[in-house]
Amino acid sequence: MNKIEHIGIAVKNLDASNQLFEKLLGVPHYKIEEVLSEGVKTSFFKSGPNKIELLEASNEKSPIARYIDKKGEGVHHIAFAVEDIVAEIERLKNEGFTVLNEIPKKGADNKLVAFIHPKTANGVLVELCQEIKD
Amino acid sequence: MNKIEHIGIAVKNLDASNQLFEKLLGVPHYKIEEVLSEGVKTSFFKSGPNKIELLEASNEKSPIARYIDKKGEGVHHIAFAVEDIVAEIERLKNEGFTVLNEIPKKGADNKLVAFIHPKTANGVLVELCQEIKD
Repeated sequence: MNKIEHIGIAVKNLDASNQLFEKLLGVPHYKIEEVLSEGVKTSFFKSGPNKIELLEASNEKSPIARYIDKKGEGVHHIAFAVEDIVAEIERLKNEGFTVLNEIPKKGADNKLVAFIHPKTANGVLVELCQEIKD
Repeated sequence: MNKIEHIGIAVKNLDASNQLFEKLLGVPHYKIEEVLSEGVKTSFFKSGPNKIELLEASNEKSPIARYIDKKGEGVHHIAFAVEDIVAEIERLKNEGFTVLNEIPKKGADNKLVAFIHPKTANGVLVELCQEIKD
């Protein structure tokens, strides 16, 4: 794992939170992206080598809607940058982690992603992400 | 804010979680530090330019004990590196954030730290931290 690629934060209202995080981080968001397959609308901020991803549910069945119903707004996941997501999934399975999607899927921000079940990672939803090279 | 300095994760058992995060991150923790004033025992892992800080309560009144009672293990705070913590506290107060300690205090890992109330930051406990120069 090379670095923290981003922290995903579940928010109720993306417009309001974009304003809030612009004040917090001192920079505006640099992109908005909807991931229809995941039921989320996202925005991204840069913080040096890292990013903050805000996630708003785009429908009632979205995992983000369920998360906010249960836990309220806050940190939803931590994503680590990896070079070879397939090898990393295999390594983590062998170490006893439960990988939620063993076949990487296309996520926001031009990434292949896979998630590790928080029950096997101290309550933290961990995302692996590998940049898709064109 | 220069980067994500670290993510703080509340854990029940530091020894067990050190083993778990060594498997997850592929590197061992590089230090253990107790912060008596905060009632926490911490360990640190490097992930490129960032760190993961595990936090175990060192007494029953520790904020980490209360956090785990209420929410279970998981992400406790996000810390951002800043150059001038006093100026940053002033800037964030003026932007409407509630700063929990307006006078920076000594935290783990040779840092001056201040916290922003999660109610004013989308449910995220935000830490500002400035390296103490010898």
